[in-house]
Amino acid sequence: MNTVEQNGLSLKRIGICGLGTVGSGTYNLLRRNAREIERKVGAAIEVIHVGCRRDHPDCDLTDVKVSRDIFEVARDPDVDILIELIGGVDAACDLVMEAIENGKHVVTANKALIAEKGEMLFSLAEEKGVQIKFEASVCGGIPIVKAIREGLVANHITGLAGIINGTTNYILTEMEKPGAKGYEAALSEAQEKGYAEADPTFDVEGIDAAHKLTILSSIAFGTPLNFKDVYTQGISIVDIEDIQYAGELGYRIKHLAITRLGRDGVELRVHPALVSNKALLAQVNGVMNAVMVTSDAAGSTMYYGAGAGAGPTASSVVADVIDIVRNDTVGVPNRGFVNEKEQAGTVMDIMDTVCPHYLKLIAEDVPGVMARISSVLGNHNISIEALIQKDLGEGRAPIVMITNQVKESVLMNAVTEIESLTYVTSPIKHIRVLGSG
Amino acid sequence: MNTVEQNGLSLKRIGICGLGTVGSGTYNLLRRNAREIERKVGAAIEVIHVGCRRDHPDCDLTDVKVSRDIFEVARDPDVDILIELIGGVDAACDLVMEAIENGKHVVTANKALIAEKGEMLFSLAEEKGVQIKFEASVCGGIPIVKAIREGLVANHITGLAGIINGTTNYILTEMEKPGAKGYEAALSEAQEKGYAEADPTFDVEGIDAAHKLTILSSIAFGTPLNFKDVYTQGISIVDIEDIQYAGELGYRIKHLAITRLGRDGVELRVHPALVSNKALLAQVNGVMNAVMVTSDAAGSTMYYGAGAGAGPTASSVVADVIDIVRNDTVGVPNRGFVNEKEQAGTVMDIMDTVCPHYLKLIAEDVPGVMARISSVLGNHNISIEALIQKDLGEGRAPIVMITNQVKESVLMNAVTEIESLTYVTSPIKHIRVLGSG
Repeated sequence: MNTVEQNGLSLKRIGICGLGTVGSGTYNLLRRNAREIERKVGAAIEVIHVGCRRDHPDCDLTDVKVSRDIFEVARDPDVDILIELIGGVDAACDLVMEAIENGKHVVTANKALIAEKGEMLFSLAEEKGVQIKFEASVCGGIPIVKAIREGLVANHITGLAGIINGTTNYILTEMEKPGAKGYEAALSEAQEKGYAEADPTFDVEGIDAAHKLTILSSIAFGTPLNFKDVYTQGISIVDIEDIQYAGELGYRIKHLAITRLGRDGVELRVHPALVSNKALLAQVNGVMNAVMVTSDAAGSTMYYGAGAGAGPTASSVVADVIDIVRNDTVGVPNRGFVNEKEQAGTVMDIMDTVCPHYLKLIAEDVPGVMARISSVLGNHNISIEALIQKDLGEGRAPIVMITNQVKESVLMNAVTEIESLTYVTSPIKHIRVLGSG
Repeated sequence: MNTVEQNGLSLKRIGICGLGTVGSGTYNLLRRNAREIERKVGAAIEVIHVGCRRDHPDCDLTDVKVSRDIFEVARDPDVDILIELIGGVDAACDLVMEAIENGKHVVTANKALIAEKGEMLFSLAEEKGVQIKFEASVCGGIPIVKAIREGLVANHITGLAGIINGTTNYILTEMEKPGAKGYEAALSEAQEKGYAEADPTFDVEGIDAAHKLTILSSIAFGTPLNFKDVYTQGISIVDIEDIQYAGELGYRIKHLAITRLGRDGVELRVHPALVSNKALLAQVNGVMNAVMVTSDAAGSTMYYGAGAGAGPTASSVVADVIDIVRNDTVGVPNRGFVNEKEQAGTVMDIMDTVCPHYLKLIAEDVPGVMARISSVLGNHNISIEALIQKDLGEGRAPIVMITNQVKESVLMNAVTEIESLTYVTSPIKHIRVLGSG
């Protein structure tokens, strides 16, 4: 970076592209805490150029250069670090490439950009000797990228499981409350409160979580970014009844993102899962996020906080900026991020993953049904760890089971066989359970 | 640091002093994960000199220089970074000073050393242009120092509350179990399991937590290390009955370390406290630690993990070593650590702190007693937020109350007045409550 001074301190000059919720939050945070940051860092950090289609009512842009063409920020020779907060993939990618080509470090909160274009961008950055930092792209204000890449750097990480989408956690939390009306009602409420978009697909179907999980898995294991291979299941399959049965069995249902290092590759999956009431993850409610990381030396550590919002996301964006300012002579771009060919980079098929499962089915209430179901499971070496069987009247009996740890392909064969039994009257609902492994 | 190469990678040479539980854990972790660390860091890290009074059965010291005089490690010109794991204050201080004088960076897990001698050591390190890092001194494997100094660097931190001593958390967790026999029995069990020392004073009286809190407060607020001013209360005042009453009121009792930035100074206190069942901190059980940090941008973030043990502590020691290796050209010693004169560095007297309180007293079961107690509280502008009144038989009635937020000196005046009432037959037990502020 260039060396410019201000009041005897080295001055780092920032360009911000995008002045929406996070952009304005970042701009205002850098100004509000400027003196405290200066004191901690020993350098001055000043936003000198903002690229945005329109001004933001909360930002005083009086002394700052404003361009309507964001690419002017990427070409501004006075800008040392460019903060990309425009969102989306294609335009953001062009912008970041232009910034890197012009020798600027880049900080971004854009999970889709990193998950989908990260490999190419990191190569380009390494070639040009600049850094790309992306703490804010995962779990907003929680310094989880830093915790994994630096705090746990000495560890061999074996896996992580997290609640990394606030929208789905809010909806599931609401669905647990007494008198809750179900998924659609909870989604509407989330939309009213601004926790879900008008088109909620990205959140409720797990795509947002899959983007974040791609990044977490890559930094945890040093494997390439594998977004296209993430198994993704949304929360719309969960109904109130499942939540109640899970409760009776000592579990809560959470939308989890899980990645684990297996013998045959990396597990990479986003889906609803039963989590034991006793697990700390089960106590993470509303829009909050948390990630539990398992590693050889530190054991289990968990990181909890707000996963979105102007303040939390800005907190992580500015932390990244400061890291670059503090470390600008360190010669390890994207430190900690290693594409190690020898390490298992293959993503496991969901059918090959192993965990306990929750199964729910409706059977006619005649003698011997449960025996026949148990017998099918037994033939596949699946045991039943917990069981609820109720009489609904009208000759129908819902049966809810939690199995032992079983390979998903084996379970699916058993499920098909059970569904073909004479007295089983409904397709089997199955939800994965967070195992202890 | 010197520049030495090994297999084309820059090599950093480590000296370890002390080969007890943490020392041997650190030594073995550096060797076990050497290749993975090399890959992440882009440099080789090798232990070349160990100073210890006796070898450790778990450590293969074949290719390593071993000195019985630890000061030889501090004087070894080939050592770049010295890891101090001998514990205690005076000898450790002499050792660290010797290392610094010889131009070595220092990594330590020694909370007492940092809390009591940190100011002097940081000055000396700054003068000599070396770093002192101490992640492992607080909460073992949780990267809490890094989270505060780097992850939350953009934030104005307003306070933090944590469970930062595993021994006391284990004892309190055991005391909650059905059939638990009380503090003495739980302490004995902790001693049998190796979670408490033969002389448990340091842990159960809160001195260990006070050391850690001193460090956390200092890095959170940039204030000087103030160990001597920490208010400390141990857990022996808590009995099973208190835990049960707290449970009925929706609380659990935890041994908390709290520091908050107030108008008149910094609160710095370690004591048992009632924590709402709904708070995530209340769900932290056994020997586990967790710290909830409150700051202006990120909001509330929490960090959870094992607070002690060879693996977790070694994880943080090695992370510090790697930080030094990665950043060895950065010119900000002890980065983030600022003694800012203008920021309130005065520690508030415990009598000036404000929080809700739990009060328990025994009164004779005669009409009008509760009215007189309420009237005394009312005269001091203290309101009762929750109340349990039971008939024990034999004319005695225990009364348990939770007050509103009240200044401790005001509460104490009211307590004295209530204790002097005719029908109040016991001294009043009071335990602080973790407020929402």
